[in-house]
Amino acid sequence: MMHTLQLTKSDGRALTLYSQRPLDAGLVAPSPFANPLHANPHLRWHPLRGEWVAYAAHRQDRTFQPPPEYNPLAPTRDPAFPTELPAGDWDVAVFDNRFPTLSAAAHDAPATIVPSMAARGQCEVVVFTQDANASLGALPLAQIELLLQVWGHRTEQLGARDDIVYVLPFENRGAEVGVTLSHPHGQIYAYPELPPVPARMQQQALQHFSQHGVGVLQALIEREQAEGARMLYDGPEAVAFVPVCARYPYEVWVATRQAVPRFTGLSDAQRLDLARALKTVLMKYEALWQRPFPYLMAWYQAPTDGLAHPEWHLHAQFYPPYRTRERLKYLAGTELGAGWFAMDALPEDKARELQAVQVEIE
Amino acid sequence: MMHTLQLTKSDGRALTLYSQRPLDAGLVAPSPFANPLHANPHLRWHPLRGEWVAYAAHRQDRTFQPPPEYNPLAPTRDPAFPTELPAGDWDVAVFDNRFPTLSAAAHDAPATIVPSMAARGQCEVVVFTQDANASLGALPLAQIELLLQVWGHRTEQLGARDDIVYVLPFENRGAEVGVTLSHPHGQIYAYPELPPVPARMQQQALQHFSQHGVGVLQALIEREQAEGARMLYDGPEAVAFVPVCARYPYEVWVATRQAVPRFTGLSDAQRLDLARALKTVLMKYEALWQRPFPYLMAWYQAPTDGLAHPEWHLHAQFYPPYRTRERLKYLAGTELGAGWFAMDALPEDKARELQAVQVEIE
Repeated sequence: MMHTLQLTKSDGRALTLYSQRPLDAGLVAPSPFANPLHANPHLRWHPLRGEWVAYAAHRQDRTFQPPPEYNPLAPTRDPAFPTELPAGDWDVAVFDNRFPTLSAAAHDAPATIVPSMAARGQCEVVVFTQDANASLGALPLAQIELLLQVWGHRTEQLGARDDIVYVLPFENRGAEVGVTLSHPHGQIYAYPELPPVPARMQQQALQHFSQHGVGVLQALIEREQAEGARMLYDGPEAVAFVPVCARYPYEVWVATRQAVPRFTGLSDAQRLDLARALKTVLMKYEALWQRPFPYLMAWYQAPTDGLAHPEWHLHAQFYPPYRTRERLKYLAGTELGAGWFAMDALPEDKARELQAVQVEIE
Repeated sequence: MMHTLQLTKSDGRALTLYSQRPLDAGLVAPSPFANPLHANPHLRWHPLRGEWVAYAAHRQDRTFQPPPEYNPLAPTRDPAFPTELPAGDWDVAVFDNRFPTLSAAAHDAPATIVPSMAARGQCEVVVFTQDANASLGALPLAQIELLLQVWGHRTEQLGARDDIVYVLPFENRGAEVGVTLSHPHGQIYAYPELPPVPARMQQQALQHFSQHGVGVLQALIEREQAEGARMLYDGPEAVAFVPVCARYPYEVWVATRQAVPRFTGLSDAQRLDLARALKTVLMKYEALWQRPFPYLMAWYQAPTDGLAHPEWHLHAQFYPPYRTRERLKYLAGTELGAGWFAMDALPEDKARELQAVQVEIE
């Protein structure tokens, strides 16, 4: 059971609290920022690549000097130093990013020599827990289930807006991928146009679905299960595996067995098993080198354009930056220049490493 | 005038020496590796993204212990420790990568649950100078001109092969992008299929060319010149500028004014001015913070598929990893997950920083 409480911060930003228990309706949303939000990001068209690029030149208007241990994602303890979140009995929180790349408030764009427009959409921060020292994989299974529900609720709320066609929840984790704030959190980008990667995935998925009458990922999962060599979790409703075509050495995908286009379409049984698959992967990552394991986790789902999209299959892709315990994989000439990934490790070998890590979920 | 000498290393790899002066035909190609090359990389199809991924699991068969100052790209001084290159009077050298991601020798692929095939093609190393302490931008203009000729020669040689359809010269520079060897050098990847980024660029270029009868980049350059705000070099035949749609804070493009599809089509006047534009950018980068400036430099040109491709326009794109003097731009959720770039700096502001750096080419 998910309880929600929708609040508005003094600077105008939205905050939604989520809990497995009823929420105290008297909770008030704090904000570290005194001034109202004046976000006005814009988009410019990249004519060579045929894609939009977002520009958000924000003034840094922080009006206070926080103490060194200040964590904006922790519940507010000292009213003199408000964080983004209230103290109280909540499990997961979602609030508008103070420095958004995409914003419902975006209202105009400078005239440029390429097409430009206001960068409508939304950028949200998703706080996974009140515990600054936890990690996503260390959370109880019920909390991870709740998070999957939260992503569904955000998809529903954001997807209902006319200026949003694609909702992407993701987590950047670790200093190796540029994250300095270790409090467990992710982000949601809600885009006004279908971005290049999901656009390409949709094109491929549509082609497969129209030819074979089954989704491309569902068909691949059946073959991954049959071969078994790269499976990390094979549950009644969900799976996790190193894909046969991994582009990163420790790349892992987490998905339901049967295609479900969006978070909003998950059954309770699917959501529970998907949470178990996700937690299994995260525990394996963490146990592999007995230290925090950095990654980018992206959740792909169908666009929120009002169509059913039976060709889509909700799933997560993990891109860890390490290729061995000591060495990072840098994206360089062939990856960033050509979009052609080169791997010096076989997915089968990396899968074996992760298979050898034993983890148990109570 | 470009002189060439084609040699073969003892392990079977090709070495071509280039010089502005006649070469000594008695030069012999050394190799740090005693064993013959047994490269057999393979490709697997990524069914969700619709692209190939290359796998090359090489045995590390180095059979000697090099001294700590050993530089494999320096001319061989001590025959007991052969490098990749002979001593002698040459300017630029190109040799086959010992650990290729793509190889003419690739002969088979494991059976996988997705389509797979031998990873034909070629990976070459391009040594820009004998001087380990130089940098591309510090080389004399005539040497940079020669390098542009070398890239043309490689495009011609590799493009003539049936198993190669796209030739991409690039340079990864600096520890920040994963390069540990500071001897000035780049690489060439010659692909058996059109990679995703040039494929997308070709699609966009074709559409523009068929609609307007002029190339998309040539049209953009005319508008960049007219506005002027982001220009770094505006010469008789070539230009350099921060593009209006930059995806990286210090992104710069270098191009001829008129569309030339490939290196092989450059006139002498165009090549000279292109070298001048390139050197100007590199000197500005280096002078900006008075320290070596890391980047990825990729040179885009038309495929080598036998067609004329009037829609293509040879040019370089620079992607520097820094967003300020102290801070790196990490590619994270939105960039790698969605392919949607987000910038917190305006191209106009970054262009002003680079415009303010005065450099002079003798």
